[in-house]
Amino acid sequence: MRYVIIGGDAAGMSAASRLKRRAPDADVVVFEKTNDVSYSACSMPYNIANTEKPMDGLVVRTAEAFRDVQGIDLHTGYEVSSINPSEKMIYGKTLDGNDFESSYDRLLIATGASAIRPSIAGIDLDGVFVLKSLEDGRKLKNYLADGKVETAVIIGMGYIALEMAEALTARGIKVTMVKRREQLLPWMLPELSEVAAKELEANKVEFFPGLPLESITRGGNGLTVNAGGRSFPADMVLVAVGVKPESRLAAAAGLDLGADGAVSIDANMRTSAADVFAAGDCADITSVVSGRKIWLPLALTANRGGRVAADNMMGEPVAFRGIAGTAVFKVFNLEIAKTGLTMKEAEDAGFKPVYKAIAAKSKAHSFQGSAPLHASFIADSESGKILGAQMIGSEGVARRINAAAVALQAGMTVDEFYECDLAYAPPFSPVWDPLLTAASMLMKKSGT
Amino acid sequence: MRYVIIGGDAAGMSAASRLKRRAPDADVVVFEKTNDVSYSACSMPYNIANTEKPMDGLVVRTAEAFRDVQGIDLHTGYEVSSINPSEKMIYGKTLDGNDFESSYDRLLIATGASAIRPSIAGIDLDGVFVLKSLEDGRKLKNYLADGKVETAVIIGMGYIALEMAEALTARGIKVTMVKRREQLLPWMLPELSEVAAKELEANKVEFFPGLPLESITRGGNGLTVNAGGRSFPADMVLVAVGVKPESRLAAAAGLDLGADGAVSIDANMRTSAADVFAAGDCADITSVVSGRKIWLPLALTANRGGRVAADNMMGEPVAFRGIAGTAVFKVFNLEIAKTGLTMKEAEDAGFKPVYKAIAAKSKAHSFQGSAPLHASFIADSESGKILGAQMIGSEGVARRINAAAVALQAGMTVDEFYECDLAYAPPFSPVWDPLLTAASMLMKKSGT
Repeated sequence: MRYVIIGGDAAGMSAASRLKRRAPDADVVVFEKTNDVSYSACSMPYNIANTEKPMDGLVVRTAEAFRDVQGIDLHTGYEVSSINPSEKMIYGKTLDGNDFESSYDRLLIATGASAIRPSIAGIDLDGVFVLKSLEDGRKLKNYLADGKVETAVIIGMGYIALEMAEALTARGIKVTMVKRREQLLPWMLPELSEVAAKELEANKVEFFPGLPLESITRGGNGLTVNAGGRSFPADMVLVAVGVKPESRLAAAAGLDLGADGAVSIDANMRTSAADVFAAGDCADITSVVSGRKIWLPLALTANRGGRVAADNMMGEPVAFRGIAGTAVFKVFNLEIAKTGLTMKEAEDAGFKPVYKAIAAKSKAHSFQGSAPLHASFIADSESGKILGAQMIGSEGVARRINAAAVALQAGMTVDEFYECDLAYAPPFSPVWDPLLTAASMLMKKSGT
Repeated sequence: MRYVIIGGDAAGMSAASRLKRRAPDADVVVFEKTNDVSYSACSMPYNIANTEKPMDGLVVRTAEAFRDVQGIDLHTGYEVSSINPSEKMIYGKTLDGNDFESSYDRLLIATGASAIRPSIAGIDLDGVFVLKSLEDGRKLKNYLADGKVETAVIIGMGYIALEMAEALTARGIKVTMVKRREQLLPWMLPELSEVAAKELEANKVEFFPGLPLESITRGGNGLTVNAGGRSFPADMVLVAVGVKPESRLAAAAGLDLGADGAVSIDANMRTSAADVFAAGDCADITSVVSGRKIWLPLALTANRGGRVAADNMMGEPVAFRGIAGTAVFKVFNLEIAKTGLTMKEAEDAGFKPVYKAIAAKSKAHSFQGSAPLHASFIADSESGKILGAQMIGSEGVARRINAAAVALQAGMTVDEFYECDLAYAPPFSPVWDPLLTAASMLMKKSGT
């Protein structure tokens, strides 16, 4: 049996490793277009903040280890350019310019996502960066290496933009953030979004929402970002306006696309073509909350998707039920976490969402280090079903969100969550965990 | 309507507050035998560690606030000595020696738990303490105030014993721990218990398990603890061998007792006597895992029980489904957490438990501050149902256990938990949260 995988990052290498472990005699072949496999992309902002650590320290496992220790037939610098599902063939070109082709018995498309690069003048200027691949990270960090970058403009205010605002500030660079839309984190409840805005202000990051990007120009002293009729000078520019699924190969091969243009897959990771599977950031996935297909590129989803795809490629029907949609990130001293649907997503999915956001403390009131924390639940006002939760605070947020994520997986109502026996001790929580208090207040508000 | 409550701590005052809020015109009368109400007993070890903070800083709400702001008819220094359920009367004596009596329409017994004081010679010597009430805490802290206590023996190795080992060590006191049973924390899985033992060693706390307490004697230079044929000199002794439900009043009134001699109650907090309810540490409660009645004195259970009792006393049938049994505490640099059943409790409840304990990291592997962490699940090998979870580590344990607590409330299997979408970001977790890895390994081990 010949298993071929396109893409050597989280989903691809998770699948390859599992296939080779469970079917040692099979051919497991991976084609990765870059020279990097299996690195922690999520750690790039922290690495960039740190002048001591080399970027290659983010490599979790080297290509050699995959080849020599695991026996995976891994080709780096091999870019697949087309798939022929009826002939079960793929075709491509190496970085050296040589053509290659390969047959497969089962194919996994794990081509990931790519950074969105707006079609504006100046997007390709020297000093303008995106941050998605390890190579993007290397280029950006090299650009900072001589210490001459004093000011940066970040376009976008999503989590990568915010993590990079922290990273650049840590390197003494004055950061200005500019974005098209009005709200800092549009998915976030307004009470919580305000807390994030104050944290940026406290860390001298200026931000200008509501300014659509027009162009980037280079003058005598550096770059200028032109947005919404205003001009922002900068020594470097990071464009962090989001990512899109890398589904062009699949589309060209005639495969169905789904949510947000991602490769459409079923619970067994099968695409619309026989013996072709997809997993990770290039594919869509089911929301366990709404039951609808969504596109939400997350590391755990990619790792899990790769594993589940491997099982199904081997003929073992394992279902990936879906995801709650849990994400957490850090910006300066804040932990920001969400799981499930936003208010807008809940409305779009046909629910009648209500929410309650409360201010609480991370530990017992009088305990040293007890920090303000905002917790919230979003629920359907008719069924009482929990639809989402969001939290923000300087301490005790990131791991707390998991309780809500499990509740979403279990399909709990707010009332049922309120009955949960969450941990209490003064160094760690008030007697009533903030999520229990949020649940209680939401029950009162919605009269359930 | 006249609501009478015996006991002015967590359960009693939670009930009183809720009753008065929901039925402002009712008489809500509380009799508390001490002069203290509504204090954070769980915070006493941390307060004792701190020479700056007064013990009375632990009072959450004063008696005056309950009386004047909330309108609760609160009597402190009133010890109830008998209940007559057929006449709906209670009788008692004040600290001043005066008799009192009161009728009731609905009665709540919220008498809490008391420290076990072994019947051995020397238990009443000056310098020998227990730590349960705020008055216990004041006496102990006063005894330390002159700075002359250089050595302490703690009898017992439960969580109060361990918290006090840390507190006394923080004050420069050399601590020796002695206990009857062999294992440090008998409920804990051996892999995790070893970690706790090493933490004590690292903090110069000597501990001697397997030594039954025989007597405490006073010589010229201080106290001597005699246990298992050995002698341990000390300037002070803390007896922390556990607590027992304070159910004597209920028993004398002919009420049924349940698990471990606690007052037996149903899901509506009703005792076996008409119009008599019980809540908090004096009462038993249902385990949502085994469905059996257990006795497990916990602060959240008492607070919740008080609220639920209030609703039922007002004639609104609200059920307290039960508790998972979630507890967390800190000892030196370790966070220790559990939820659900122990292996032994699972066996006793008729399950066929298996467990898997794994070593993991609290954050992404390479992230600064990522600390070793041990996580485990206990599950029924036949149904796959999660029965319990235990964790220990210096970081990221306390709030993580809540995910497992919610899973127990939802009755999840290990497989279902493994499907949960837990939060990942390098500063907070590996891609696979340690609890997901533990679930995965337990699935492999048990072949589910």
